[in-house]
Amino acid sequence: MTRRAVVLLSGGMDSAVCLHAAHREGFELYPLSFRYGQRHHQELQAAEALVAALPVARWMILDLPLDAIGGSALTDPGQTPCKEGPGSGIPATYVPARNTIFLSLALGWAETLNASDLFIGVNAVDYSGYPDCRPAFVSAFTTLANLATREGIANRPFVIRAPLQHLSKAEIIHLGMELGVDFSLTRSCYDPTPHGLACATCDACRLRLAGFQAAGITDPIRYARS
Amino acid sequence: MTRRAVVLLSGGMDSAVCLHAAHREGFELYPLSFRYGQRHHQELQAAEALVAALPVARWMILDLPLDAIGGSALTDPGQTPCKEGPGSGIPATYVPARNTIFLSLALGWAETLNASDLFIGVNAVDYSGYPDCRPAFVSAFTTLANLATREGIANRPFVIRAPLQHLSKAEIIHLGMELGVDFSLTRSCYDPTPHGLACATCDACRLRLAGFQAAGITDPIRYARS
Repeated sequence: MTRRAVVLLSGGMDSAVCLHAAHREGFELYPLSFRYGQRHHQELQAAEALVAALPVARWMILDLPLDAIGGSALTDPGQTPCKEGPGSGIPATYVPARNTIFLSLALGWAETLNASDLFIGVNAVDYSGYPDCRPAFVSAFTTLANLATREGIANRPFVIRAPLQHLSKAEIIHLGMELGVDFSLTRSCYDPTPHGLACATCDACRLRLAGFQAAGITDPIRYARS
Repeated sequence: MTRRAVVLLSGGMDSAVCLHAAHREGFELYPLSFRYGQRHHQELQAAEALVAALPVARWMILDLPLDAIGGSALTDPGQTPCKEGPGSGIPATYVPARNTIFLSLALGWAETLNASDLFIGVNAVDYSGYPDCRPAFVSAFTTLANLATREGIANRPFVIRAPLQHLSKAEIIHLGMELGVDFSLTRSCYDPTPHGLACATCDACRLRLAGFQAAGITDPIRYARS
């Protein structure tokens, strides 16, 4: 039987590269996306386009009321994501326990599917700011996954795969080009215009633009101003 | 400031005792319940009654589409919970990664609330069958919680409190009586009648009835047959 992988797919460039990396490794693909009250819900349209571009066994979108929990500029209509550029602390766009919540649901689905591999696009750029993108987090979740589940205690099969973990944005872009990712389908902006153009000034846009510049490649998506 | 606690509250007797235990310790109470596609959704009415019986700061019910993930007799309308009595393996009512998912959401809310203590009613009876009720699971989640969050990496404050962990059902009932729990408000049955009577034959009913018998106390709820 082909091995199955659950791949967290936001619609951003990192998760797009992750999905292609899992495909290249020969996994049967089960991408998982969330409608969690994010202000940048247009990323789900990007996820849909990315799913259409690959042979995917089943795409699941789960509704998660993280806006009810609050605590983040990404899910609070009253807050605007920072436009000052990445700083040294944890950004206002941090969503409390988000990757723990996303991986938990991916784990539940993986156990049902008899999938052992969970892909997540965390990377070096993110983990400078977000606690739940660091290698120590990924490692602790792997330990938990194999204690928390029927399959886990029987066979300890679960592996959290973070193939971008030690890559810069430019390296991720180069890897994506090599894997055939169509970056024009991806969306990263936290604060897009009503017509879906990226703002060019939120942290996500700044990191993306800097990554393409460092990679020496033109970002194929459209920006409202740049 | 009064210390705050997020308490997972299903509406069953274990979580009811947990809620009272957190109250006795002087915590400001933030019970958290889930509408997760469970066939025994009447337990949420029990949760509501339990919340009304104590001074609760805020009760949150989150909608979680665990039935979309599948893999359990508790969320699959096509399956019936086992009526054969508890066996030695993991029961069909096991929901993949459920406590990991519930605790992850509790963690996100706790971080937003500046609460450090998360209460969960797992106990010795459950962890004979469910992997995510064992002390090793609780311990691994605590480690994860303090790596996965802004507060966690700054101050390592999160504690997963499982005050029933080493108690039998009879001991839990005695503790509940001492704490003033009104057990007539609680619901445990996995397969209640349309009128809300407990079936007396599912695993949850059998464990509950045996617990009351061992405690020498009459269970105050009504059963369809017994």
